[in-house]
Amino acid sequence: MALIVQKFGGTSVGTVERIQQVAEKVKKFRENGDDIVVVVSAMSGETNRLIELAKQASDDQPVPRELDVMLSTGEQVTIALLTMALVRRGVPAVSYTGNQVRILTDSAHNKARILQIDDQKLRADLKAGRVVVVAGFQGVDEHGNITTLGRGGSDTTGVALAAALKADECQIYTDVDGVYTTDPRVVPQAQRLEKITFEEMLEMASLGSKVLQIRSVEFAGKYNVPLRVLHSFKEGPGTLITLDEEETMEQPIISGIAFNRDEAKLTIRGVPDIPGVAFKILGPVSAANIEVDMIVQNVAHDNTTDFTFTVHRNDYQAAQQVLENTARELGAREVIGDIKIAKVSIVGVGMRSHAGVASRMFEALAKENINIQMISTSEIKVSVVIEEKYLELAVRALHSAFELDAPARQGD
Amino acid sequence: MALIVQKFGGTSVGTVERIQQVAEKVKKFRENGDDIVVVVSAMSGETNRLIELAKQASDDQPVPRELDVMLSTGEQVTIALLTMALVRRGVPAVSYTGNQVRILTDSAHNKARILQIDDQKLRADLKAGRVVVVAGFQGVDEHGNITTLGRGGSDTTGVALAAALKADECQIYTDVDGVYTTDPRVVPQAQRLEKITFEEMLEMASLGSKVLQIRSVEFAGKYNVPLRVLHSFKEGPGTLITLDEEETMEQPIISGIAFNRDEAKLTIRGVPDIPGVAFKILGPVSAANIEVDMIVQNVAHDNTTDFTFTVHRNDYQAAQQVLENTARELGAREVIGDIKIAKVSIVGVGMRSHAGVASRMFEALAKENINIQMISTSEIKVSVVIEEKYLELAVRALHSAFELDAPARQGD
Repeated sequence: MALIVQKFGGTSVGTVERIQQVAEKVKKFRENGDDIVVVVSAMSGETNRLIELAKQASDDQPVPRELDVMLSTGEQVTIALLTMALVRRGVPAVSYTGNQVRILTDSAHNKARILQIDDQKLRADLKAGRVVVVAGFQGVDEHGNITTLGRGGSDTTGVALAAALKADECQIYTDVDGVYTTDPRVVPQAQRLEKITFEEMLEMASLGSKVLQIRSVEFAGKYNVPLRVLHSFKEGPGTLITLDEEETMEQPIISGIAFNRDEAKLTIRGVPDIPGVAFKILGPVSAANIEVDMIVQNVAHDNTTDFTFTVHRNDYQAAQQVLENTARELGAREVIGDIKIAKVSIVGVGMRSHAGVASRMFEALAKENINIQMISTSEIKVSVVIEEKYLELAVRALHSAFELDAPARQGD
Repeated sequence: MALIVQKFGGTSVGTVERIQQVAEKVKKFRENGDDIVVVVSAMSGETNRLIELAKQASDDQPVPRELDVMLSTGEQVTIALLTMALVRRGVPAVSYTGNQVRILTDSAHNKARILQIDDQKLRADLKAGRVVVVAGFQGVDEHGNITTLGRGGSDTTGVALAAALKADECQIYTDVDGVYTTDPRVVPQAQRLEKITFEEMLEMASLGSKVLQIRSVEFAGKYNVPLRVLHSFKEGPGTLITLDEEETMEQPIISGIAFNRDEAKLTIRGVPDIPGVAFKILGPVSAANIEVDMIVQNVAHDNTTDFTFTVHRNDYQAAQQVLENTARELGAREVIGDIKIAKVSIVGVGMRSHAGVASRMFEALAKENINIQMISTSEIKVSVVIEEKYLELAVRALHSAFELDAPARQGD
């Protein structure tokens, strides 16, 4: 008998009919003898509806505390509906809001962080044979104010509950049946991964394979909560996300290929090579609330250096203006940029112990005559920036070079 | 500087635009230097929408505890919206759910009763100059379960808060500008009452002048909270509902004429006049969940008596069947009934000290050749049942006979 936390997102509970399907699924697990805690989001569309009302009432300046009072009602409706659907099926169940559990958070409205979870009530209910249905995304601060964790926070609620209850598994139900070696729309041979490590998942997620909230993965890694991504309405084992325990031997070198076509790059050329220059360049960018992704600076040449970074395409114009000012102040030669770029990354804990992974990547790209514009590496990832038009070709070439292609299925 | 509790119902907060109007009104009171606690209902239509969802999820058998979890979200959204609209106008404000206040109730889900209100937080906020916006209709039981007071319970929340805070006045904003001597659609000369006593208001309300929830009037009477009925969006003093304090001298004998055309009467004739017969007749009616209004039994005749009562017209068929059974068991002569009846009542604390009120009533009806079928009286009310077609005529005749008609206005 296992204790499982199951999280269903807004689309999975988007209609009463879907809530009934979720109830059926939970019932089956219960009949297998598992103890179940279910975490649900607001019905899809509800959060946006409430935000719209709040904007209307406040001239686009919703009061953060009051916005949380409103937004938390979305999940509150879903927990009651799912609990009723369970009871109707003869499954004893009870619902709890974040406040009722009590999921204690800090007081940062709209983006609160969980500090502590009281597991007393939940344990008593589980012991009494009840399924416990908890509102995701919300909590309460020490003063009794309702807080929300920010968008996607229901994943975090699921993981935090699993950690507090020392659950055997936290299952995140989504609209995909697992984590893939890369986007199947680009590479039809992409395979579902049986397993992936937290670190790999973080790199995959931040690089564009948006299956889970990054924060919830960090959280799961920190508290070592086994996390499983599954499809809400299809059968299948999904993908298990766990710690990397002495299994490196069996693992492939690369787990997946991530990519991102939303970026643009900017280079400031001929910057004096003196201490503090990186801060002088990035400080104003950051002050303008522009997030920077890759940063590359090569060794200096004739006492000047080139400094390149990537930003989201939407921020390209703003970043360019900031950089022109900086260039004047620093006496740099010029600012150049390009929005027609794409980032491709290979990710895998296996590369730690395998030399030559990067060269194998570069070789595969060279074979296809794809020029590499920028390179950056971490312990478990190598990212390159290439011309955007080569993106699909590059992903397919790498997927094949690292032997990730699924064997051709019968009938394919 | 007064402390005022203001309650706005679902129609008054039915759209964001109306919520803005309510915020304007509250702001004006605040600028007059009054301390304000606002109680709001769910936006009109929201409660029905939620009930519909609950029925769908539960095959028409909503779990009472879970239904309260859902329904309470309606007011939770409104308090946040109104608070934002106030803050936007520069009026410091804060919202509280029933649980946050803490409005302690019993555990009777969907129809809970308020046991106790903690006024600590509210007093601190008022002292700090904030308007406090409280969710009506909801509370929390001793175990932390969310409860609701049942339909119309927001009025009760307003009165209970006013009692707990010893407020100077509890203002109930509605879609009428006060309590009238009778329905102005029947008698154009009907006048708005400046004042009415709690007892009169109870008799008026239960007799069909549905301005306020009966329960909230009882509550206000019990705790002596001055209650004022006002129009949400029109100016005017409304009607004040208070205790009857030695002002009888100045009061008119009759405050108003109430009427009701939703009733039907049933008579069981020739019942043996023995102890316990009334119970034998009404017991089965009550067991069939049929509510009985007027009951009349006259003195016996030849050891048999006639027993008459009125029920809601929708219950007429069911009551008749029950009564036929009873008649057979008791050996009564026959069961007769009539649905084409109407009840007309004169209400006024003044009649306590004035003899002859009933005879004046009967005289006025006789002058119009209206036959009286049943009579029942209480200390401050005389009700008669007449043929339905005479209803308007009877009300107008009584309104005039008791000198309630407004002087003809210029231009009328």
